[in-house]
Amino acid sequence: MMKILNGENIVDNRFFKRFGSFEVKAIAEAVAGQVYGDESFLVNDLGTLKDAKEDQISFISNQKYLEDFKSSKAGVCLLEEQHLAIKPESMIAIVVANSYEAYAKVATLFYPPQEVESFIADSAVVAKSAKLADGVYIGHNVVIEEDVEIGAGSSIGHNSTILAGVVIGKNTKIAANATISHALIGDNCIIHPGVRIGQDGFGFAPSAKGILKVEQLGRVIVGNDVEIGANTCIDRGAIEDTVIQNGTKIDNLVQVAHNVRIGYSCFIAGQAGIAGSTEIGNGVMIGGQVGFAGHIKIGDRTKIAAQSGVIGELPANSMVGGSPAVPLRQWHRMTAYLKKATTKNES
Amino acid sequence: MMKILNGENIVDNRFFKRFGSFEVKAIAEAVAGQVYGDESFLVNDLGTLKDAKEDQISFISNQKYLEDFKSSKAGVCLLEEQHLAIKPESMIAIVVANSYEAYAKVATLFYPPQEVESFIADSAVVAKSAKLADGVYIGHNVVIEEDVEIGAGSSIGHNSTILAGVVIGKNTKIAANATISHALIGDNCIIHPGVRIGQDGFGFAPSAKGILKVEQLGRVIVGNDVEIGANTCIDRGAIEDTVIQNGTKIDNLVQVAHNVRIGYSCFIAGQAGIAGSTEIGNGVMIGGQVGFAGHIKIGDRTKIAAQSGVIGELPANSMVGGSPAVPLRQWHRMTAYLKKATTKNES
Amino acid sequence: MMKILNGENIVDNRFFKRFGSFEVKAIAEAVAGQVYGDESFLVNDLGTLKDAKEDQISFISNQKYLEDFKSSKAGVCLLEEQHLAIKPESMIAIVVANSYEAYAKVATLFYPPQEVESFIADSAVVAKSAKLADGVYIGHNVVIEEDVEIGAGSSIGHNSTILAGVVIGKNTKIAANATISHALIGDNCIIHPGVRIGQDGFGFAPSAKGILKVEQLGRVIVGNDVEIGANTCIDRGAIEDTVIQNGTKIDNLVQVAHNVRIGYSCFIAGQAGIAGSTEIGNGVMIGGQVGFAGHIKIGDRTKIAAQSGVIGELPANSMVGGSPAVPLRQWHRMTAYLKKATTKNES
Repeated sequence: MMKILNGENIVDNRFFKRFGSFEVKAIAEAVAGQVYGDESFLVNDLGTLKDAKEDQISFISNQKYLEDFKSSKAGVCLLEEQHLAIKPESMIAIVVANSYEAYAKVATLFYPPQEVESFIADSAVVAKSAKLADGVYIGHNVVIEEDVEIGAGSSIGHNSTILAGVVIGKNTKIAANATISHALIGDNCIIHPGVRIGQDGFGFAPSAKGILKVEQLGRVIVGNDVEIGANTCIDRGAIEDTVIQNGTKIDNLVQVAHNVRIGYSCFIAGQAGIAGSTEIGNGVMIGGQVGFAGHIKIGDRTKIAAQSGVIGELPANSMVGGSPAVPLRQWHRMTAYLKKATTKNES
Repeated sequence: MMKILNGENIVDNRFFKRFGSFEVKAIAEAVAGQVYGDESFLVNDLGTLKDAKEDQISFISNQKYLEDFKSSKAGVCLLEEQHLAIKPESMIAIVVANSYEAYAKVATLFYPPQEVESFIADSAVVAKSAKLADGVYIGHNVVIEEDVEIGAGSSIGHNSTILAGVVIGKNTKIAANATISHALIGDNCIIHPGVRIGQDGFGFAPSAKGILKVEQLGRVIVGNDVEIGANTCIDRGAIEDTVIQNGTKIDNLVQVAHNVRIGYSCFIAGQAGIAGSTEIGNGVMIGGQVGFAGHIKIGDRTKIAAQSGVIGELPANSMVGGSPAVPLRQWHRMTAYLKKATTKNES
Repeated sequence: MMKILNGENIVDNRFFKRFGSFEVKAIAEAVAGQVYGDESFLVNDLGTLKDAKEDQISFISNQKYLEDFKSSKAGVCLLEEQHLAIKPESMIAIVVANSYEAYAKVATLFYPPQEVESFIADSAVVAKSAKLADGVYIGHNVVIEEDVEIGAGSSIGHNSTILAGVVIGKNTKIAANATISHALIGDNCIIHPGVRIGQDGFGFAPSAKGILKVEQLGRVIVGNDVEIGANTCIDRGAIEDTVIQNGTKIDNLVQVAHNVRIGYSCFIAGQAGIAGSTEIGNGVMIGGQVGFAGHIKIGDRTKIAAQSGVIGELPANSMVGGSPAVPLRQWHRMTAYLKKATTKNES
């Protein structure tokens, strides 16, 4: 395949503009870390444990990469206490309480998110009644219908469609080729390409004359600091709203049906699906490809293993797995039991 | 998060234009219901059991909302016989055979679907050979290629792409950012944003020289009154057609592979997937995240529980669950057996 | 529903332009087959076993269609040795080693893939710094940002968005309404409509002050001869790249998370999902709706049954099924065991 190397650097400057170099001391201050080694050493870039050069900084967080850590040539590494003793001898360590959090900060130091450029493309179609705050970015071929409101510092990617009446807060980024209708969206959100928000929910009433479509008269309400992954779909409510509270992060290709209410600071991994009118509490962690039945309530801080099928209420702090989902420990026992029973049969 | 209330009304007039107020008598006539209470009472809007005001109408259909019903302040409620005795005293009841069907009708009374505006955007690119009937709506930046035909009253949402030769019937709505190719689509369909119809199926032939792509020479045939959810994908046939018959409703993020044939009036919930050449009968109900193997036949009126994996033929009227799918009762027994066996082990 | 017949032909000339008729002899040469019957017979088109006319050629590959084969009216049929004795008497046979491969070649003979037209739409927005090779096709309303490079013979479908710095090789086809960013894409690839490549991965670090977004500084590297299905999402790496090697074919609605590495010539069926940093070997076959945990390695030539949940490493040549996935035979035993246990209970 094509040549994919970037010369000396791991981060490709075609796509990302680097700031600094930074002294170890400055980095340590940014992450409230303690330095073991030369504080004046100059760090030029980020790198992985495996590929970082001597003038680059890496981090160790996941134990799976311990071998890479031990043989890493990174000049500097963000790490937690327990890894200090086993670091390569020449490596400068910055010891922190949470190395992944520290890495996130250092990544932003070297590669701060791009400022939104104030720009309205000539090819964009913006209704006269739309209210665009100063400093918005409206990409090429964007369509913005009547009465839309977009707050300062927000951006709409090329070829996206914002239908009548939608309200978008400040510093929210809508990526390219997305469609938003019947929605109020907060501040500091990131909506990835191909997201569909606000279309009709899947509501039908059987009748003697066939299937009646039920008019979908609700909205989608998205709080602040919400991230919604590529090609994810969020239907508007039937009459109540579909709601996603502040700080919740949703991955790609997720289905959120009408009237669903998702609490604060949840994580929803790729291809999960939530059926109509289900309520997800706060701080809930949902694995990939999980499915929820409709009209159920999921308690705060519940953790749901990937591919689970949740068909009933779950109290707060539950940990469940399997389809239908059961307490996680029981799910492990069920799997082990079946394995044992059928391994015996084999001999 | 942002303020999300709409003042007195539940339905947001940013997005939906209300018709009427209506007298209870007029509403009862529209739904063939019997009134218990003041027939001349004026209803101003719709509401949920929980939030409706005195001048609003609600409905009780799902038993899960019985408590909300008993304490509801809705002035009027659509309900079935069995709930009449337990209604709040001051509530005017309209008794009907099917309260959800009645609600669907009342919703359309207050909020009739918007008429399609006759409009062709300047920014739309329409091939000279395309035949657009009178009264179509062609949104901004829409691309319509050669020989496309679009029937009267149909609309194509902004930024959508209709490739060469596609035929779309009357009163069919294609939403924004969709892509349609190699397809004949009937009347009164609703195609939601981001839908992909008519792209190549996943057809490859292994060969001594590597993997050969098999040219996909079929089409997608969509009947009348079909609804296709956001970001759903329907591949065209390999040589036979992929077919979706009249009245079938498909939810978001569903995968329909090449040569699949889906019968009349099926319901297919979100994220279900149907592998190549499988035939689904009429009136089949498919839960969310269900998967079907290829080259199998599913009998009429079959019901398939969410997350099931269907790997073999199913006779008409089957009810199945599990992966691989078994008769629903057996699936429940399998789950119960395993739970019991592993609960015992725990004590 | 609407009339869907094409008169005499099965392949619809609205959508596909037929080349030739071809003599049996010419076809047999193209597929290195041996003719049983009249070599000078003229074949006008392709057809299915069930619907082909006397002047058409069909093929038998899947045993499920044996009855259709025995009663087929196709004048000519591509078949393998074992079916020669049971062919309809009047049918001319072309015996080949691999009838599906032969069909693929004959389909390309009658319906060769369309040549890319050299064209740049007036409505396309192409940055001055973009380098477009001669003979590219840039569709209507396409947006091509700064420093993009597109190789000779490649095409970008209408309403697609190619963000800054992306490199696309030769003879690669990007369909309509797609979004590509932070990616290097090879030659001879097919990227279907609605595909999202290069958006941020799902990377967050919990912190005392809430959830920190981790800047996603990697790329997506796609080799040559890769096919990526409609509405599939491939996130860019966190710092390493997300990589898809030459010859891999990915179906619709698949999720590929950040840092995933997929080897050569894999097949990934619809709605499969691969969590972050997982490495898939070469020649791996992945069924529909399969899920992979993150940070695991899957050996070469592994086969994974549909809907499986793979949570650990798999050695080369594994065959697994179930969720969590176990060796395929054991999975069958587990299912059989449970069925037997619960069938007994029923009697």
